[in-house]
Amino acid sequence: MSNTLGSSFRVTTFGESHAPAIGAVIDGCPAGLPLAEADIQHQLDRRRPGQSPLTTSRNEADQVRILSGLSNGLTLGTPLALLIQNTDQRPNDYKEMIDAPRPSHADFTWQEKFGIRAPSGGGRASARETAARVAAGTVAELLLKRLHGADIVAWVDSVGSIEAPAIPMESITRADVDAQLVRCPDPETARRMEALILETKEARDSIGGTITCVCRHLPIGLGQPVFDKATARLAQAMLSIPSVKGFEYGTGFAATRMKGSEHNDTFAARKEGGIAPASNRSGGLQGGITNGQTVYFRVAFKPTATIGQTQQSVDFQGRPVTIEGKGRHDPCVLPRAVPIVEAMAALVFADLSLLNRSSIL
Amino acid sequence: MSNTLGSSFRVTTFGESHAPAIGAVIDGCPAGLPLAEADIQHQLDRRRPGQSPLTTSRNEADQVRILSGLSNGLTLGTPLALLIQNTDQRPNDYKEMIDAPRPSHADFTWQEKFGIRAPSGGGRASARETAARVAAGTVAELLLKRLHGADIVAWVDSVGSIEAPAIPMESITRADVDAQLVRCPDPETARRMEALILETKEARDSIGGTITCVCRHLPIGLGQPVFDKATARLAQAMLSIPSVKGFEYGTGFAATRMKGSEHNDTFAARKEGGIAPASNRSGGLQGGITNGQTVYFRVAFKPTATIGQTQQSVDFQGRPVTIEGKGRHDPCVLPRAVPIVEAMAALVFADLSLLNRSSIL
Amino acid sequence: MSNTLGSSFRVTTFGESHAPAIGAVIDGCPAGLPLAEADIQHQLDRRRPGQSPLTTSRNEADQVRILSGLSNGLTLGTPLALLIQNTDQRPNDYKEMIDAPRPSHADFTWQEKFGIRAPSGGGRASARETAARVAAGTVAELLLKRLHGADIVAWVDSVGSIEAPAIPMESITRADVDAQLVRCPDPETARRMEALILETKEARDSIGGTITCVCRHLPIGLGQPVFDKATARLAQAMLSIPSVKGFEYGTGFAATRMKGSEHNDTFAARKEGGIAPASNRSGGLQGGITNGQTVYFRVAFKPTATIGQTQQSVDFQGRPVTIEGKGRHDPCVLPRAVPIVEAMAALVFADLSLLNRSSIL
Amino acid sequence: MSNTLGSSFRVTTFGESHAPAIGAVIDGCPAGLPLAEADIQHQLDRRRPGQSPLTTSRNEADQVRILSGLSNGLTLGTPLALLIQNTDQRPNDYKEMIDAPRPSHADFTWQEKFGIRAPSGGGRASARETAARVAAGTVAELLLKRLHGADIVAWVDSVGSIEAPAIPMESITRADVDAQLVRCPDPETARRMEALILETKEARDSIGGTITCVCRHLPIGLGQPVFDKATARLAQAMLSIPSVKGFEYGTGFAATRMKGSEHNDTFAARKEGGIAPASNRSGGLQGGITNGQTVYFRVAFKPTATIGQTQQSVDFQGRPVTIEGKGRHDPCVLPRAVPIVEAMAALVFADLSLLNRSSIL
Repeated sequence: MSNTLGSSFRVTTFGESHAPAIGAVIDGCPAGLPLAEADIQHQLDRRRPGQSPLTTSRNEADQVRILSGLSNGLTLGTPLALLIQNTDQRPNDYKEMIDAPRPSHADFTWQEKFGIRAPSGGGRASARETAARVAAGTVAELLLKRLHGADIVAWVDSVGSIEAPAIPMESITRADVDAQLVRCPDPETARRMEALILETKEARDSIGGTITCVCRHLPIGLGQPVFDKATARLAQAMLSIPSVKGFEYGTGFAATRMKGSEHNDTFAARKEGGIAPASNRSGGLQGGITNGQTVYFRVAFKPTATIGQTQQSVDFQGRPVTIEGKGRHDPCVLPRAVPIVEAMAALVFADLSLLNRSSIL
Repeated sequence: MSNTLGSSFRVTTFGESHAPAIGAVIDGCPAGLPLAEADIQHQLDRRRPGQSPLTTSRNEADQVRILSGLSNGLTLGTPLALLIQNTDQRPNDYKEMIDAPRPSHADFTWQEKFGIRAPSGGGRASARETAARVAAGTVAELLLKRLHGADIVAWVDSVGSIEAPAIPMESITRADVDAQLVRCPDPETARRMEALILETKEARDSIGGTITCVCRHLPIGLGQPVFDKATARLAQAMLSIPSVKGFEYGTGFAATRMKGSEHNDTFAARKEGGIAPASNRSGGLQGGITNGQTVYFRVAFKPTATIGQTQQSVDFQGRPVTIEGKGRHDPCVLPRAVPIVEAMAALVFADLSLLNRSSIL
Repeated sequence: MSNTLGSSFRVTTFGESHAPAIGAVIDGCPAGLPLAEADIQHQLDRRRPGQSPLTTSRNEADQVRILSGLSNGLTLGTPLALLIQNTDQRPNDYKEMIDAPRPSHADFTWQEKFGIRAPSGGGRASARETAARVAAGTVAELLLKRLHGADIVAWVDSVGSIEAPAIPMESITRADVDAQLVRCPDPETARRMEALILETKEARDSIGGTITCVCRHLPIGLGQPVFDKATARLAQAMLSIPSVKGFEYGTGFAATRMKGSEHNDTFAARKEGGIAPASNRSGGLQGGITNGQTVYFRVAFKPTATIGQTQQSVDFQGRPVTIEGKGRHDPCVLPRAVPIVEAMAALVFADLSLLNRSSIL
Repeated sequence: MSNTLGSSFRVTTFGESHAPAIGAVIDGCPAGLPLAEADIQHQLDRRRPGQSPLTTSRNEADQVRILSGLSNGLTLGTPLALLIQNTDQRPNDYKEMIDAPRPSHADFTWQEKFGIRAPSGGGRASARETAARVAAGTVAELLLKRLHGADIVAWVDSVGSIEAPAIPMESITRADVDAQLVRCPDPETARRMEALILETKEARDSIGGTITCVCRHLPIGLGQPVFDKATARLAQAMLSIPSVKGFEYGTGFAATRMKGSEHNDTFAARKEGGIAPASNRSGGLQGGITNGQTVYFRVAFKPTATIGQTQQSVDFQGRPVTIEGKGRHDPCVLPRAVPIVEAMAALVFADLSLLNRSSIL
């Protein structure tokens, strides 16, 4: 509900972009999971600003501290409170937005809905809020690894019109992804994407793109019919990320142009015993439930709304204003969004894993 | 949770495709809403099988009965129980599926998850379950109309590779949509879609497509930050529909190829006072909250998994079997899915409307 | 929420006292539980009116029908819809209440809250609604028996000032309880209670009392800290029953007059291995979590608000009216409330049992 | 769920007694509520240890800090994170409990449920956790005052067998209550209670008691039928407080000995127009919904489980041990529990107030 995600593994995030702190409380993580701040810090570092010339020059350490729920390196089964102090606050960068809503930001809708909003930056609607998700998602990921040996890898699949070739879904690693600044594991494509982003930055503009994510070694049976299908939960989780405009899994939108006879995944016997789909156009999910194949999906990000160019708009009173982009923002959010997508996928599947007590047979 | 959708306007559906009945219980509908069975029946009739040569020849009356929560034509504020008897059951059509999971159906994952499944048809995973959603969604729609004067219209936007031209989002009506059997309001496109579907049916095959939906006259401010953004809730709702593989709103996946300077919606003063975005690439939703513009989104449906052609697969023991498609299914689910998409959108916004008590200012 | 109870084993009830039907939908019951309508019917028969001279002369068969979620006598893991038709409707008995709120009933508060209410009887606030709880609770009870071998027995502990002596908590059975019309298992006390109830009935009055309930063979560890302690959930469940005014568990209110040195349960080794409390003043619950001892608690019921005597009150417009009790109601609800208390306890513990996945150690 | 309370005004607490910090996140507090740390601090000071010779000599400042959700003294409608650092940690006081479960504490059940527990003190089961509730409850109280002009006052009604005379429910104030160290507003009774507590402390023992609480000026209509009646929610909230063994509202258990003809509240016209019950045996709640009268209820606390006397018990391996009470605990928790009861009542009614959108009539 609103700032809480999940039914069994429940995460509540808090904090505005320029408040003293942001953070997350995880309720429902089972006792006995080995956990350290360093585990979380690694993913936070992949998300934080200031990593490379491709991202914003803002520089926040995003140091996480675990305030509760842990003893001798093991979770207690009690709420884990994760805290990240906000450090690099420059409210002056945002001064003008008090009077005029920034184009394609949430300033207008928040002001209308709440009658008030954070005095600077995007408040809760800022992408800064996603740091808390990444922190919590990392705990979810550790749980999934512990329970099932599952792992999750996302990468930048396209930037603008530059699309990566087919990436080997079963073998791709985070190391492969991080080998490229833009986090597209295909080196040649990465080079072109990086050039486009730098060119866009030069033009004081921004550019969109897509991220593909795979979740491997999940057990069969995750996903609650009817409204909490894993597909539905993933879609909700991804669309809750700022700037996301679309979601598809398996063949996705391409399936709409296919015939059933070409699209269907028939079944085959497995060497290890049992049966499995012989192909994976279903994206690892049938009837919204994991089928033992690799889950894969794709997420669409719009170009960052904040740009360096001036824009003609109006203030809240309807008077013409010239919006000048002074904030330090990303020309392309995609590289930093990779760990966010991974975190949200981990939160969804950790919750579905704990919910999965479906049968006494 | 699982079979319940919504926080304030909560719908729980029940019933398998071949059980005595299916239905829905709505909890949280405010008292005082005028409601009659005929209101619901109209949308059920748009969803039911056997409407035209384009759809399955199964024929179910899908007559709804309101068992509780109503007095003298007004809702009491108590749960509305909606019941639809299952009538045209032919379990023999499904006999073989007891032994072999149908390709790209939920038979395999349900069997693995629950250790048991309904003896025939898709059980809860059957598209039949969506009749209960349509019934409940119609009540949600009446509530939205009463509270805000809102209306919702969906149509078939593509079938296979045949795409409709731009449809006038502000003026399109359900009558326009229903004027074509295929429910694409552009007559020329409709004609081509219908030909493709009939040809596909002839080939004992199936075909996918997309549905676009608009929600008009919603008030500003619907959508709960952070995880229950209207965008996130819509995505969840749409991906919970059987056969759906993708969701996008506003510019959607196309936004990924755009620059911020071309994508941003700047603001302008409104004649009626106040301000509003001057364009609507945001699809009526900024920061996941309605901005007073028309909400629009698009949903991708895969080709129906059940086809008339024989398919080579294996049974649950891994022995080769030939699957023969005997069930009476739709060559293209799109025309019948139009009221389902509308219903899910109505359920999402009715819930968000009742949740929207955000400020005491 | 409102008409739904539980997080994992979720029950939604519907139906007004004089609507076509009442019922319940259970979502979250695991697949594979053997279940038949007859199992449910037995507890419904213990609750239904017209059982003896001690209860109302209304006569409703309360025949339950399972509409979904069941196949070949096993639950499917899908929602179980339970339906009970309302048969013996005599709206005329309630005619006057349309104009004047009945004393100590919910007529006034419902009218104020909803601006409308069911035209006759108590609508959802009627004790009739509890039949749906008993139906659902019986399924919960079967699940607890299957999972843990648990059983639940409640009895009438006091009527007015007549109190039962100590009842042997470890051995008492439902057969012992049902051997007495008043459902107090001590025959001598039962005789006096029955006399008091008949005398009260004769005087066209009503009388209150208490019910004690034991839950045996529950596993250690049920109850979620902090707000969903088993104690807290039991209290909520019991106070949700119409006419209930109080709840206590273990030593309850008597503990307030005790010293810690006399109240504490120290621990002792068990013959079977492990340790257990050496006494049970804690009522089987420590820190809100089951400790392996028998859970016991007591529930206070006020005298039935509907009485045969005339009462001076005012109508909704404030004009003096004489309320005449014409409805057929119980002089004492206690005997029929026994299966309701059992059902609510079963619903609480079935939910807590499915929620109990607390540790991966 | 577990560490979260409420549906609309949702509070999640975190922190163990000896972790770095405890705290609460409030999600759902509307925007625009004036709030300052000092408002919260006042109630925390009423709860904190070390206030008087009647309470534990532990001394914790319990200084609250608001980390998010606030701007210029107004709530933003975003989550309010409230943090209290733990300062006075003396883990050595609790050393022995690692090996032996303390009698009538939660050590045994937590260890069994989670397979692990906090290394010292009661962890989450410690009464320390209630500081976070008081902090959050104070925000709820401010909201209720702002929305409805409501106020809440609790007091110690009995200690052991010493009971206060009837307290004037409509006029009693917190100042009256705080005028006595023991927080019983009747001076003569207070003197006797204080003597009993000091005598109990001297004997290294502990004693129980009851707290009565009134909630005034709540609007008519709070409380959601059927399972979320205000009565049910209050009972859950109170039984979730450590050491609580019982709850009753209005006439409570005494009602069980009454006749309907003496217990019923008939209605009368009000001078201000409208009607209201002419008496208040219903405790302000009919059908679980506020009726505009003062809500009152009573909560039973057992004697503190930690005592200074030695107790014979066994360790987790079943070996006899002598438990010596070295921790600094309260001989009677009642005085410090007064603000906890108030906080829990405020949390319940703030949530029910925001949920109360029942009618469009």
